[in-house]
Amino acid sequence: MTKKHADLYPTRAENYPEWYQQVIKNADLAEVAPVRGCMVIKPWGYGIWENIQRMLDLRLKATGHVNAYFPLLIPQSLLKKEAEHVQGFAKECAVVTHSRLEEKDGDLIPTDELEEPLIIRPTSEAVIGSVYSGWIHSYRDLPLLVNQWANVIRWERRTRLFLRTTEFLWQEGHTCHATKAEAIQETLMILDLYVNFAKDCLAMPVIKGIKTPGERFPGALETYSIEAMMQDRKALQAGTSHFLGQNFAKAAEIKFLDREGLEQYVWTTSWGVSTRLVGALIMTHSDDYGLVLPPPLAPRHIVLLPLWREEQQKEGVLSYCKQLADRLRQRFYEGEPIRVTLDEGEIKSSRHWEFIKKGVPLVVEVGSHEVNNHTVCIRRRDCPPQEKVFLHRDEFTERAPHLLCKIHESLYQKALAFQEKHTHFIHTHSEFQDFFTPISEGSELHGGFALAYAADDATTQAILEERKITARCIPLSSEHETGRCIFTGKPNARKILFAKAY
Amino acid sequence: MTKKHADLYPTRAENYPEWYQQVIKNADLAEVAPVRGCMVIKPWGYGIWENIQRMLDLRLKATGHVNAYFPLLIPQSLLKKEAEHVQGFAKECAVVTHSRLEEKDGDLIPTDELEEPLIIRPTSEAVIGSVYSGWIHSYRDLPLLVNQWANVIRWERRTRLFLRTTEFLWQEGHTCHATKAEAIQETLMILDLYVNFAKDCLAMPVIKGIKTPGERFPGALETYSIEAMMQDRKALQAGTSHFLGQNFAKAAEIKFLDREGLEQYVWTTSWGVSTRLVGALIMTHSDDYGLVLPPPLAPRHIVLLPLWREEQQKEGVLSYCKQLADRLRQRFYEGEPIRVTLDEGEIKSSRHWEFIKKGVPLVVEVGSHEVNNHTVCIRRRDCPPQEKVFLHRDEFTERAPHLLCKIHESLYQKALAFQEKHTHFIHTHSEFQDFFTPISEGSELHGGFALAYAADDATTQAILEERKITARCIPLSSEHETGRCIFTGKPNARKILFAKAY
Repeated sequence: MTKKHADLYPTRAENYPEWYQQVIKNADLAEVAPVRGCMVIKPWGYGIWENIQRMLDLRLKATGHVNAYFPLLIPQSLLKKEAEHVQGFAKECAVVTHSRLEEKDGDLIPTDELEEPLIIRPTSEAVIGSVYSGWIHSYRDLPLLVNQWANVIRWERRTRLFLRTTEFLWQEGHTCHATKAEAIQETLMILDLYVNFAKDCLAMPVIKGIKTPGERFPGALETYSIEAMMQDRKALQAGTSHFLGQNFAKAAEIKFLDREGLEQYVWTTSWGVSTRLVGALIMTHSDDYGLVLPPPLAPRHIVLLPLWREEQQKEGVLSYCKQLADRLRQRFYEGEPIRVTLDEGEIKSSRHWEFIKKGVPLVVEVGSHEVNNHTVCIRRRDCPPQEKVFLHRDEFTERAPHLLCKIHESLYQKALAFQEKHTHFIHTHSEFQDFFTPISEGSELHGGFALAYAADDATTQAILEERKITARCIPLSSEHETGRCIFTGKPNARKILFAKAY
Repeated sequence: MTKKHADLYPTRAENYPEWYQQVIKNADLAEVAPVRGCMVIKPWGYGIWENIQRMLDLRLKATGHVNAYFPLLIPQSLLKKEAEHVQGFAKECAVVTHSRLEEKDGDLIPTDELEEPLIIRPTSEAVIGSVYSGWIHSYRDLPLLVNQWANVIRWERRTRLFLRTTEFLWQEGHTCHATKAEAIQETLMILDLYVNFAKDCLAMPVIKGIKTPGERFPGALETYSIEAMMQDRKALQAGTSHFLGQNFAKAAEIKFLDREGLEQYVWTTSWGVSTRLVGALIMTHSDDYGLVLPPPLAPRHIVLLPLWREEQQKEGVLSYCKQLADRLRQRFYEGEPIRVTLDEGEIKSSRHWEFIKKGVPLVVEVGSHEVNNHTVCIRRRDCPPQEKVFLHRDEFTERAPHLLCKIHESLYQKALAFQEKHTHFIHTHSEFQDFFTPISEGSELHGGFALAYAADDATTQAILEERKITARCIPLSSEHETGRCIFTGKPNARKILFAKAY
């Protein structure tokens, strides 16, 4: 039985990219949409995103931010105002040029051409800056701390579900401050908020750092990011926070009168995380049986599966399960009632596999044996799915919140140990080359995250490009350390985190 | 003071459309965006929408619906499949034709033309139908009960904040059923859900009914709606629920094997409410002083305003207010802690007007007089703002949830009485003409809602068009009543609700 169900996937070792697709398919998270590069987020996948939204929204509001909504379409004259910004996004813009369709010989022809083409937002700095210039007049209007939950479009050439899709969902925060120091403080506060959110909600350890100049957001003075390690040891950028200086303030004329009555440009920041986090989540925790969900994000914490062989057992098993479900729903996890489903699907002994694949943290089977002994049979998703534990039903009800906490903690610790095991300090160019060479023939696996002193120059860039390696960030934990560049021997090189990346 | 602040608006009687704009402006709800026909929903307005979303989402989930997300862009080949549907929406489509911008002589030129133009969803039946055809194979996959929260675009010629904007936010439910009866039941269940939601959350009485054929959603067999009366006695369609029959199932080939193993088309429904509800809310309850919010939707239930004349009073007043805020936050309204803000803005006696204009249900002033007497000075937003009530602070804390309930109930009753007062049964054509004639020179006011037997034919249509009156619906409360048409004398005419409408 186990074998058969495990065989639905290639394992991670056999074919990692295909394994990723199969986890998504078997957990019913999402599928390719009938529109190029877009996805349909199915109910189970969207349930995860709703939990991400709810939990992150609470954290953003607790730090003084409010939500608002800005238009989807951006006149190209607005986009043009910040030169670096438009350069960064012009290559991948969906452009609206007409406002009507007309039927002609059975075909639909776009008509009523717009005077000015409109761009579907790839990000909203341009339109929000223009709006903010009308909102801010005095230091009393600052800081302005606004977030938006929205869809954006970037015309990506190669797309993969959740990781890179033409349309994706995200939150984008856009704040304005009276001073440079305050704006930098906001940028870093949000970075920490993302680090804690990744840990507390996604059970995902991340490395926070500053991007090297070539990796900055178009128009930003500094870009900070959180980087997570996937199980193929590649990096995934899971969130970014940008210090924009006065670039967008000058482009959009966002000015205020300070306490002395002098006119000043504001200092702005922007920051966001997206549905990409669902991809990160999948590749951080899932195993060869399917999705593994950290409990805070699981649409269901517990699924109860009643099982019976003979019809006469049915009533007893079902009423036992219903009572158990009611009692579990009175228990709380993370401030909310435990989310329990009693699944009344077709009776078959392999039924738990459906929920194993969906990543349900606790799958509980109840047959007449359990009813007679007042027990339950539990499979913890952070353990091999063949492993069953029998608990007295009262003990289970009592311990359920604690079990969920323990699952979360064990997922985090496992991911952290993995990340630490595959992060190495690299001393020389040849060591660097070895580190990123596949560990065995036919394998894509390489060393993982390399920390090394390196000058941010053309030599480094050429070496990275050749091997498809990227500078992920300068980790903040060793921000001020410098040493000799492993490629050129130049002194005062910064300590950079290198990795192959999604 | 009162006079001065009331004078910020034209009154409803003086200039109703301008009053509407001024309520929005003074409550800081929304503003016109720098993109034609679009709006920016500002934090206070978006806070109302977030409450609408949260409360409606709970109700949809409690009735078995789950959320998902479908793509923003629809290939025109999909849109074309349902003939009536495309005819209904082709006139107002935003069309994406290019995927890149290139700089040329300082201008940005759209390049990389798409092989097939993509339409920004005006509604999602076409794309969702295409997706559903892959999800549904057997009767076991039914019913499929999915909802989406999304933005849509309809290229409207004349726009007004919240009521009609090029882009708006909404929820759209799309369900599939094995039988016609079940689909009709879903359509009507959602209609009732909307009626109750309007009452319980918006304090808005509505009339539910069936649309006449000319007013149906393009592609639907039946459209049901809820209609609300605004204070200028015009109607506003506040939500719709469509029975789509098998039209979209046939267009998208959504088929299933029934219990007998026969292939059948599913029966589908769709239904939605939008940010238009915020416009409905404004025009149902607001007065000449500004916005009036039903407590369930108010981003803040209570604002506390500390006031002092001399610096030495400050500490006492502030600590009294902080204690009061803490105690109020322990009280619950509608299952959640009461939302209290302690406003520490500039001290001036007119400060309450800001919050009156924003529609805060309870504005509470505290000065040293109140501190010394352990009282609070309360203004209820459902009463004239000059009216103050003094309560002992403990009594206020005790009664606050009840006060909010009472405000909600009084708003509903007032709106219901208004709707009933201005809804008349009309017996003759000339009575009908009089009813829709302005009640006095220079006024736009007319009788309101007219109930009358009328044939749904060209004669009726011509009379309506001439007077810019529309058939809103056939109210379900008198769905089966028939009589002689007031225009032509034809028998078996149905009882229709007529009104001027937004």
